[in-house]
Formats: sequence, C-alpha cells, structure tokens
Amino acid sequence: MSVETITPEQNLTALALSEEEIFTAHEGGKLSVSSTVPLLNKRDLSIAYTPGVAEVSRAIHANPELARTHTWAERLVVVVSDGTAVLGLGDIGPSASLPVMEGKSALFKAFGDLDSIPLVLNTTIVDEIIETLVRLRPSFGAVNLEDISAPRCFELEERLIEALDCPVMHDDQHGTAVVVLAALTNAAKVTGRELEGLKVVVSGAGAAGIAVSEILLTAGVKDVVLLDSKGIINAERADLVADSGSVKARFAQRTNPRALSGGPAEALQGADVFIGVSSSKLAEEHLKLMNENSIVFALSNPDPEVLPEVAVKYAAVVATGRSDFPNQINNVLAFPGIFRGALDAGARRITPAMKIAAARAIAALAEEELSADYIVPSPLDPRVAPAVTAAVAAAAE
Amino acid sequence: MSVETITPEQNLTALALSEEEIFTAHEGGKLSVSSTVPLLNKRDLSIAYTPGVAEVSRAIHANPELARTHTWAERLVVVVSDGTAVLGLGDIGPSASLPVMEGKSALFKAFGDLDSIPLVLNTTIVDEIIETLVRLRPSFGAVNLEDISAPRCFELEERLIEALDCPVMHDDQHGTAVVVLAALTNAAKVTGRELEGLKVVVSGAGAAGIAVSEILLTAGVKDVVLLDSKGIINAERADLVADSGSVKARFAQRTNPRALSGGPAEALQGADVFIGVSSSKLAEEHLKLMNENSIVFALSNPDPEVLPEVAVKYAAVVATGRSDFPNQINNVLAFPGIFRGALDAGARRITPAMKIAAARAIAALAEEELSADYIVPSPLDPRVAPAVTAAVAAAAE
Repeated sequence: MSVETITPEQNLTALALSEEEIFTAHEGGKLSVSSTVPLLNKRDLSIAYTPGVAEVSRAIHANPELARTHTWAERLVVVVSDGTAVLGLGDIGPSASLPVMEGKSALFKAFGDLDSIPLVLNTTIVDEIIETLVRLRPSFGAVNLEDISAPRCFELEERLIEALDCPVMHDDQHGTAVVVLAALTNAAKVTGRELEGLKVVVSGAGAAGIAVSEILLTAGVKDVVLLDSKGIINAERADLVADSGSVKARFAQRTNPRALSGGPAEALQGADVFIGVSSSKLAEEHLKLMNENSIVFALSNPDPEVLPEVAVKYAAVVATGRSDFPNQINNVLAFPGIFRGALDAGARRITPAMKIAAARAIAALAEEELSADYIVPSPLDPRVAPAVTAAVAAAAE
Repeated sequence: MSVETITPEQNLTALALSEEEIFTAHEGGKLSVSSTVPLLNKRDLSIAYTPGVAEVSRAIHANPELARTHTWAERLVVVVSDGTAVLGLGDIGPSASLPVMEGKSALFKAFGDLDSIPLVLNTTIVDEIIETLVRLRPSFGAVNLEDISAPRCFELEERLIEALDCPVMHDDQHGTAVVVLAALTNAAKVTGRELEGLKVVVSGAGAAGIAVSEILLTAGVKDVVLLDSKGIINAERADLVADSGSVKARFAQRTNPRALSGGPAEALQGADVFIGVSSSKLAEEHLKLMNENSIVFALSNPDPEVLPEVAVKYAAVVATGRSDFPNQINNVLAFPGIFRGALDAGARRITPAMKIAAARAIAALAEEELSADYIVPSPLDPRVAPAVTAAVAAAAE
C-alpha cells in the first residue's frame, strides 16, 4: 500500500466492516429516549405527569435554581452542527451530518454517562446559530459544537461562549488539541525531550490546527510553525497582511518565531514534531528533513498524511487517528470527561486550565507503560473518562 | 368537600401522594438517552462512529431520502413549549414548564413507542418560535406544541403547519378535542341521543374550547354555544365586533345558531351538554337549568368546574380530567397514537379526518362495556394507542 492510494474503502476493509453491517447498524438511527420513572399505573402517571408534576413546576417557578436538580436540562449536552465540515466529507449539510451527531451523543452516554441529543441546523449563518441556541437555552446544560467549518467555527464558538451561561466547546478544535497535547507530552518523554524546547510544525490551519497551536503555546511550547495550503503562516505573507483581522493573521503573530517562509520543506527542516490535521500529504522527502528521533502525528482521517509504515523509517514516535495503528489520537479520550467534569463542577466555562488539566490526566494514564507505541491510553480504556472528569472538575474550582 | 374548596393539595392527598415522593421521582429529570448500538470495542466504534458512519453520511448526502430510514429524526417528536400556559399554573416560563414536557416525552415513549425530546423556548414571540423550529427542522420528525397560551397558540400552530413539512399539532387543542369527541359520542349513545341533535355549551374559549368546538362542528354537531369570561360568544358582542379578525370572532360566526346572548344561565337553559375547559366554576343553580339526562364534562384540572358528586344530582353522564373519578378525559388516549399513526403513514399533516378517525377509534374501544361510568377506555388501556395509530394511519392514506 502506498501513501497515495489508501482509500476509506480500504480502511473499512482493514477493519473487516461490510457496507451491509454498517447500514444495518444505523437503521432507524442510533439513539433512544426513555423514561427514568415508571409509567405503569394511575399512581405512576399522577407522580410523573398530572397532577404531581404541577408541584415540581410550581416549585421551579418559585425557585429557578430547582431547575438544576429537578429537570434533565442541566446534565444534557446538545451536539450542534450545521453539517459544513463533516469528518473528511466537507459540507454535506445537516441531515447527512446527523448520523455522526447521533454517534457523538451515543459516545457521551457510553463514556461520560451524560445524556445528549443532536441538534442539526438548517442554517450556516453564525448569528442565526447563536440566536437559535440562546432561545433554546432552558432546554440544555452544555453545547458541543461539531463539524462546523473554519473560520466560522472560531467566531461561532467565541460568541456563543459570551452568549450562553453554560459550557460551550467546539470539539474539533479543543478535543483534538487536548489529546494532541497529552500525546505530545508523552512522545517528548519517550524521546527524551522537554515540551518547551520542541520545534513543532502543525500542518493545517483549520479548526484543529489553530486549537492545537493554541494549546501548545499555552502549555509552554515556544516554536510552533503553522502550515496551510499556501505554505508557512508568516506575518509578512500578503494574504494575511490583507486580512489582518483573521484568526490566521493573529496566529502569524504568535507562531513562527524564526520568521520562516516557504512551504513544507522549509518548515520541516530541523523540526522535531510534525502534527498533521489537514488532508495534505506528507512527502517522504520532507520527512527526511526533520531532526533525528522525530515525532510524527498524522491525524487526518481516514487517510493519514503519511502511513505509519513510511513514517517509522524516520520518526521515533508515530501516531494517527486510526484504530488499526498504535497510538490512536481520538477525541473520545477527552470530550466526555471534559463536559462531565465541567458539569459536575457547575462550571459556566471550559477554561484553558481545564483543557490542560484534561491533557495531563490523559497523559498520566499512559505513563506507567510508556513506550513509542503507547503514548496515549486506548479510547476504550475505562479509566480515562473518570480521570479526565476529576481533573477537569478540580481545575474548574 | 364543596365545589369551592377543593385544592390541588387535596387532590394529591386523595391520591396519597406525598410531596417528598413527587420531588424524589423528578430529581435529575425524567428522561434518559441511550445508544441503540453497542459501543464496547474498537469494532463497535468503527461501525457506529468513524470510519463507518462516514459511509452513512455520504449515502444520505447522495440520497437525502435515506435520512428517513438511517437517522432517528423521522421518528422523533419534539415537545415544544414557551411555558406560557402550563397546566393550570399559567405563564410560569420555559424552565418551570420543563418537568411537564419531560413527562410528555416519557408518555410518547411509554404509549406510542416514539422517541421524544422536550424543547423549551426562551421566547414567546410567534415569529421567533417558528423561525427556531424551521432552523432545527432536520433534527426532528414531528412537533407537539404544548402549554402555549391562547390566542397565540392558534396563529403559531397554523403558521407552523405551513412552515414545516411534517406533522405539527398543538395537543392542548386537538388532543383534548379528540378525546372529548370520543367521550361525547359514547355519552350521547348512553343517553339515547344523536350527536347532530345535541345542544352543547363549551365553557372556555381558549386553546381547548376552540378546538373542541371545531371538532364538534366537523363531526356534525349543529348547536354549539361558546362561553368565555365575558359570557356567550355572539357575533354582536362589542369586543368581538371590534376585533373581527380574532379567532373568537370567527367562531362567533360558526357557533351559537340560536343567537343567544348573556351568561352561563342563558347558555345552559335547555342545553344537553356542558363541556368545561376553563377554570370557571359551574354553579349548581345553572346545572339545574340543563335538560334532563344531561351530560357534564368538567375537565378543568386539577379542579373540575363542578365536582362529580354535585353534577350527578342532575346529569346522567359525568366526566372529568382526573384519574380519581370515573370517565377520565385524558389526552394520553389520543396524542401517542395520533403522532405514531401520522409518522407511520409518512403523513405531512394531521388532518381533520385523522382526528375524527382517532376519536372514533377511542370511542369504539369503550363500546362493548358502555355505561354512564365507562364512556372512554382507561388512559392505561394498552389497546388504545395501537387502535388510534391504525385508525389515524388509515385516515392519512
């Protein structure tokens, strides 16, 4: 298999998944709502519905704080998408995004024991998405933004955090960033380096690339070089000078301390770490330019920027987003515990300190058996969500 | 116990429900979302989430019809309220209404085997409620409007039916109307009358009163007299002449064929049927004015317009909304089967024919054991929802 020819179909084949099996599993959708109280006789009905429920409604009306304890809303995460950047499929619209959002809600329950529902929106206008969620505010307790295209996702998240008095997180940004930081912390350890001294190249300046750069800078990494389709992000680059208010222009000021310009070759020359979060391929000739004992995270899914069997020829630690290779960087390590921790603590915001705490908790779980092939726990490791929950809740206080 | 002194607390006492028991049952809310697919190992995750889910999303993008079969949306009922007319509690706001909406969603599952989620809105502006639901359209398959104050509820429902290509029903209107029609059909039989010849007084011209009048007229009743707080609704009444576009003014044209004016006394003089759907009490002296073998439905909840022990002194058939008296007129007899039937049939609208079919199906189930104390089946009768579903689905075709 060459780097160029791997396809999603081949990935499914590797997992021995048939189309039929997949479509059967998704038939009728993947979520079910049930009652937590019995509804078997008149007495049950009188408690759960009228006249009993009137007592609860009256009590909440008198004391709004009771809505936190006597409705499901305060523990309910809405998974919100407009379907503009779904997996690697792009702008496929809200209906086609719904199977992904249902899956995400299912993962919230399985890993974070949080109730969750998908809300997919027939609008891509940031103002309208915010307005819709503000109107629905009494219905939920937290917002997981999902698969919303850059750069709209940055403005949306920023403004939604201001507009709502509850946790809001765009998981494609921060879930990814948290797990990357956890993995990089351990990869640095495995290769005998300090985070602070790493020369890191982030390929992709979309939702994930920007958030990864942000968390690495927050965690103390000094030398981050961002690459987009036009090459190295540089304060002098004409398109960024022209659009000086953009997120990329802001990151041009905060990254690239050696003022590099050019493309992947110039960026990777002497770099310690490559983090791929775009669909651009990483050529073997560029891989060769990195320092010895390099670290390669090829996270594009389902087609990594470079296949592990190629990357290992040059790199000491290789990670992907896939479950069929070692070191799977998967957001499910982070988001259930981050939201659960924030809700447990009654936090109104998910702060940088809470994200860093989540990354440290994930990294710590892999520490005992740390090796080049084990820098993060498995996404199915049952210790992860409780550890992240506890760390995030502690950081919230 | 006199008619004047019954309180909700006494009703709870009658049911032997303690405050503590009620509040404990509602703690943490009453709904839970779970996954219908296993999420135990890497293979499960690869099917329900990435990379498998991408196949389903891609297929829906190529053929939007697949969203009907491969997401949960097409079978999902959203229970929507702005909290402006909650039970008998009035405008208590969206958060305080949420326990009621959770209960309603629980009933949809228990009786109609439909998934349902509550969406409570922080706006009471009709335009904004419609706009919000239009934006969320890809997330659900039907809308149950609930506890929204009149006359806004009429405009909202009417416009929402036009704006959305899926079943929309304000249950406080039509659920009530359907069960009343079922009960009245059987009460007429018990007292040896025909629907067409009944003189009916409907007390209350809010959501339920208007819809009850509407369905009775549709079903062939010729003489309906509507009462509101100002007295008999009459085309000559100054307030209705002044507001000639209002729903009440419209119903002044369609009801009151004998052109009565005045108050309850004038309305009830020689009436066969009293249907109370407001909080106004029915005085014993007015009850006396009705024809012999009269029919009294005192549906205000939890305090009926007149207590059954008083009503039976004059009426041949008495019904209330309460479970602690015979003949409980409860919307749960109708709404699960109406929505389920509409969704089973793939209907875009809930038509008058479907509502009449639902009423007939409910009435038919009580026919075999028909008596003055058994004019409708129990809300817990397991035959009801399937029978209503089948009748509604057949009427949709």
